[in-house]
Amino acid sequence: MGPVITLTTDFGTSDGYVASMKGAILKINPQAIIVDLTHDISPQNVAEGAFVFGTAYHYFPRGAIHVAVVDPGVGTRRRAVLLVTPLASFIAPDNGLLSYVFQREWGRAGRVRTPGKRRVLPGARAFQIQNPRLWLHPVSPTFQGRDVFAPVAAHLSLGLDPQEVGRPLAMLRSLPLPIPQREGGALLGEVLHIDRFGNLVTNFREDEVPRKPVTKIGVRTIHGLSLTYARGGEVMALIGSHSYLEIACRNGSAAELLGVRVGDSVRLESASGR
Amino acid sequence: MGPVITLTTDFGTSDGYVASMKGAILKINPQAIIVDLTHDISPQNVAEGAFVFGTAYHYFPRGAIHVAVVDPGVGTRRRAVLLVTPLASFIAPDNGLLSYVFQREWGRAGRVRTPGKRRVLPGARAFQIQNPRLWLHPVSPTFQGRDVFAPVAAHLSLGLDPQEVGRPLAMLRSLPLPIPQREGGALLGEVLHIDRFGNLVTNFREDEVPRKPVTKIGVRTIHGLSLTYARGGEVMALIGSHSYLEIACRNGSAAELLGVRVGDSVRLESASGR
Amino acid sequence: MGPVITLTTDFGTSDGYVASMKGAILKINPQAIIVDLTHDISPQNVAEGAFVFGTAYHYFPRGAIHVAVVDPGVGTRRRAVLLVTPLASFIAPDNGLLSYVFQREWGRAGRVRTPGKRRVLPGARAFQIQNPRLWLHPVSPTFQGRDVFAPVAAHLSLGLDPQEVGRPLAMLRSLPLPIPQREGGALLGEVLHIDRFGNLVTNFREDEVPRKPVTKIGVRTIHGLSLTYARGGEVMALIGSHSYLEIACRNGSAAELLGVRVGDSVRLESASGR
Repeated sequence: MGPVITLTTDFGTSDGYVASMKGAILKINPQAIIVDLTHDISPQNVAEGAFVFGTAYHYFPRGAIHVAVVDPGVGTRRRAVLLVTPLASFIAPDNGLLSYVFQREWGRAGRVRTPGKRRVLPGARAFQIQNPRLWLHPVSPTFQGRDVFAPVAAHLSLGLDPQEVGRPLAMLRSLPLPIPQREGGALLGEVLHIDRFGNLVTNFREDEVPRKPVTKIGVRTIHGLSLTYARGGEVMALIGSHSYLEIACRNGSAAELLGVRVGDSVRLESASGR
Repeated sequence: MGPVITLTTDFGTSDGYVASMKGAILKINPQAIIVDLTHDISPQNVAEGAFVFGTAYHYFPRGAIHVAVVDPGVGTRRRAVLLVTPLASFIAPDNGLLSYVFQREWGRAGRVRTPGKRRVLPGARAFQIQNPRLWLHPVSPTFQGRDVFAPVAAHLSLGLDPQEVGRPLAMLRSLPLPIPQREGGALLGEVLHIDRFGNLVTNFREDEVPRKPVTKIGVRTIHGLSLTYARGGEVMALIGSHSYLEIACRNGSAAELLGVRVGDSVRLESASGR
Repeated sequence: MGPVITLTTDFGTSDGYVASMKGAILKINPQAIIVDLTHDISPQNVAEGAFVFGTAYHYFPRGAIHVAVVDPGVGTRRRAVLLVTPLASFIAPDNGLLSYVFQREWGRAGRVRTPGKRRVLPGARAFQIQNPRLWLHPVSPTFQGRDVFAPVAAHLSLGLDPQEVGRPLAMLRSLPLPIPQREGGALLGEVLHIDRFGNLVTNFREDEVPRKPVTKIGVRTIHGLSLTYARGGEVMALIGSHSYLEIACRNGSAAELLGVRVGDSVRLESASGR
């Protein structure tokens, strides 16, 4: 049985787009194990896609092939890339969709504060997807997910040498990952993601949260950390399952209660530090 | 090929939660056949999860492993349990999510009118999930679905002896399943579930419906039973595919037309009984 | 490993309907590879189901078994059919859901302008699904997807001779496929489908679009063709991934911007023809 192929897109599931990608894969490798990571990324929202993909891909087995398509620039000169790391292979447009992979693979060196390129560090290899012999023809200029990404993933799952897809690349584009900024004794961060439950995932990573945190969002101040959603007060802060500080609401949506959106500011102080 | 593992959650599909459960399973058993039962249970709605799960699990092959996670109490002292019956294995929080399984397995003895515990009857065995050697570490206190339930399911699919997961349990928690009540010559029931089409599934089971039923909901009275959705009047009663009495609307949503919600009362009389 | 079985329905994913179809398949063929084509067809919208199914099924491997259930007439005298072509097998109610398959298989001969029947042409065979020995009993009159279609698909995936399902049929029902009409020097067409991104898929096929098209919809006039979504103007026309003319909006929903619905008129002229 071949490796797992995961799919992350903004295609939704009401059209035939995702299914035609799966068909294109199965036509080349009928034994492929295809798993949906998600298809509900907001249309063309690369940052959201990067975050959600970044929270889940590393749970898959070594050797998994991850295909991610949130691709407002499809058909333009933006490159399509294959990144191969010791853990997995990644196929995506070179538009920052893999930014959290860089961060996980290369730590601080993988994070950038401004949009830009990241050097592919030793241990990983990147290639531009250029070899049309691997594609489904005719290639639609508006749907490379089906005609380029899916067939390349299928060929890789059959053991294709990654070098066959195209020329090596030294740099890949990254989104600016919002790193918390120090401001006096406080850290200034923001809401990275709002999940289905209305929990607010911030960009404070577990190791950046003080032992006695004071979290400020809008007019609210939250003292301390809760261990679970069930045990906190009406509004609570806790370390969520992504290892980021989360703001949650007991039996409800914190996003709704607080009227918060992705990108809104969050301030983190230390009670012991005062 | 190992047994099927089904997943039922309230996680939705726009985050990476479901995918990370699948990754966690495939990391342990790359051959696992994973099937989504549903991920669209309303957030933290254990009763809805119990009903939807209860309508579908028994269609899966003998030996299937069913993982259900609607778990507002995650991380608290609520227990995580494994129930093994001759038909299948069930992994869930011990919060009533398996209530319709008890009813199907143990009949009247599996139904309760008030929240409470059900004795695990002969033929079945239950265990508390306690053995951390089977889990994914570090275990997030807010996401046992990924770190506890999924890995335990994967190990079971590889043939793990159920006794390895933890100590035997004699009792499991059940929701009160709303049994129709007799009131004079009538049966008083309620709307258990509203499906995607707006059909109202009541708690009158096929064998409780008189031969010439008169169904009353709100100000409406429906005489007799239709055989199919296409053949009834504007508002009709029929035996639905779950073997419960359903109230449906031809070419439309009965829920919308009648302004009905889950839990609303339905009265069932017999035309011949008058 | 057996052939792929795809599922297309209007069941949504919040109930257990789809899962119980999958269970019914796996009970008969535990090795079946089941792929969701989509379950988000608008309730009982046969035309939408036919279109979406028609855009995706042909990407699947030869020998795939496609099950499509958008079935407002379930339980009535409408027939359930199996169509076997050199490419694939199709199981559906005989209500026009396979209309785009007829068009693809039989070209102009497969298109009709008024609702009606299409002759099954040489190379294909059709059968009425009649043989109850293949079904799941008791058969619910309201859910043949689970009790009839799914088990028949599973038996076919194990190698069942298609003749076993029932008597041969010479004709199958088709929807009227909206063929563009000539009106002076122009072609008069319509919006066939609106996708998740708000792109308007028209019924002008690539080979019907002039080299220098002028597309008129509502009060808008669009000159020429764009190659990609990223390169066009605010509102653009382009050949979409289904090989139909599409009207799209840069970074937004054309459907919303233009206030357009499925069935609205589109006029196509040739700039060079004037």
